[in-house]
Amino acid sequence: MEKIRKYKKEDLVSFTLGMTLTLEALLTKQKLIKKVFVHSKLEENKNTKKLFSLCEKNKIEVEKNDKVFNVLSQKGNCFVIGVFEKFESKLRNGDHIVLVNPSDSGNVGTIIRTAVGFGFENLAIIRPAVDIFDPKTVRASMGAVFHINIEYFDSIDDYKKRFNKQNLFAFMLNSSKSILDTKFVSPFSLVFGNEASGLEKEYANFCKTVIIPQTKNVDSLNLTTAVSIGCFVAKNQK
Amino acid sequence: MEKIRKYKKEDLVSFTLGMTLTLEALLTKQKLIKKVFVHSKLEENKNTKKLFSLCEKNKIEVEKNDKVFNVLSQKGNCFVIGVFEKFESKLRNGDHIVLVNPSDSGNVGTIIRTAVGFGFENLAIIRPAVDIFDPKTVRASMGAVFHINIEYFDSIDDYKKRFNKQNLFAFMLNSSKSILDTKFVSPFSLVFGNEASGLEKEYANFCKTVIIPQTKNVDSLNLTTAVSIGCFVAKNQK
Repeated sequence: MEKIRKYKKEDLVSFTLGMTLTLEALLTKQKLIKKVFVHSKLEENKNTKKLFSLCEKNKIEVEKNDKVFNVLSQKGNCFVIGVFEKFESKLRNGDHIVLVNPSDSGNVGTIIRTAVGFGFENLAIIRPAVDIFDPKTVRASMGAVFHINIEYFDSIDDYKKRFNKQNLFAFMLNSSKSILDTKFVSPFSLVFGNEASGLEKEYANFCKTVIIPQTKNVDSLNLTTAVSIGCFVAKNQK
Repeated sequence: MEKIRKYKKEDLVSFTLGMTLTLEALLTKQKLIKKVFVHSKLEENKNTKKLFSLCEKNKIEVEKNDKVFNVLSQKGNCFVIGVFEKFESKLRNGDHIVLVNPSDSGNVGTIIRTAVGFGFENLAIIRPAVDIFDPKTVRASMGAVFHINIEYFDSIDDYKKRFNKQNLFAFMLNSSKSILDTKFVSPFSLVFGNEASGLEKEYANFCKTVIIPQTKNVDSLNLTTAVSIGCFVAKNQK
């Protein structure tokens, strides 16, 4: 393996920072784990035993190497790092979340966690957009990134061409249709715009538009909040 | 005014970093604004005019001072900073959100924005907890912190003593009652635990417990996600 350096978007590997995340990766994507680093301060406990046993079972090298932690982790409480091969996952038919130009790594990680929490198995991301394998995103997802198909598209048109039977719902502030009066019929796609700029008004031409009712004391809801409400309502509608 | 230095919890003033936030403060809490700093790179536009006119109208000093920005702002795109006196706001009767020991400044800011967005006027915070006047929290709230009553309590017992007629709903993973089958009767309090540890099981002794249905592929939902769903459902129930 090449020398360990700070993560860059073009790298073929990324990192799971922390015990919980590394265990999650070892349980779901063991074939992609290239190596596990442990810090000399790692204490022996139930999780440590589990970690070593999973690595042994899957023939994954464990290296004690404190220097790697200075390079890769800003937080003091990280004593385990997994190195995993980045993977592609194709979107399947079903209900989708579509994020158009998301720009905040932490937000996207949280959204992935929420999506998986509410049973979504497919997330489309329209470029330009953040990198889902940024260790910050992987961490914010709490490992949920290993439980969902995520595919990038160069444009919304590319997405629509591949998935031309989806019922598209665009979350927009200038919609007159409340989410409370919207019936989400599968297969549906919940479409959300960029954190700052939202969706362009053209989306109303090919999507049903939806608004989450909100007071005038806020300009808008946070993107993660909007996605949470959208996912929850669409999945739990009777 | 004393010398400007990095914000500390014990300070009597805090800061609005950025134009939008400073305008929000000038529109809602003008009596608390002590001063406004502008950077020499601030461009003249509609917002700048509005800023200067609001400051003039309210007799608030505007000082051009680039050094202050190096001290207070990490982001390069911040050209306006307001200095405001921290304020106390007492909780009133009505529906409440109760955050027990929240530890992440950004989370709490986002939660305040969501709460205001869904029409909540009262937020109780049980100590130990983050400081709502941390400029990071103020910023994440997008100014919503100026639109809601927020009061700290030393313990949940102190809160319960003052508000002994609330219907308390504790969001807990080991609850058997889904939010979908819960009727939130006003005045209600939605109670949420710490990001990592949740609520202690004792809360089940004096609250109705609620769970947001979620798949087994996540350990839990993010705190901001849980609060978003709780606020949305409780306020939009028929």
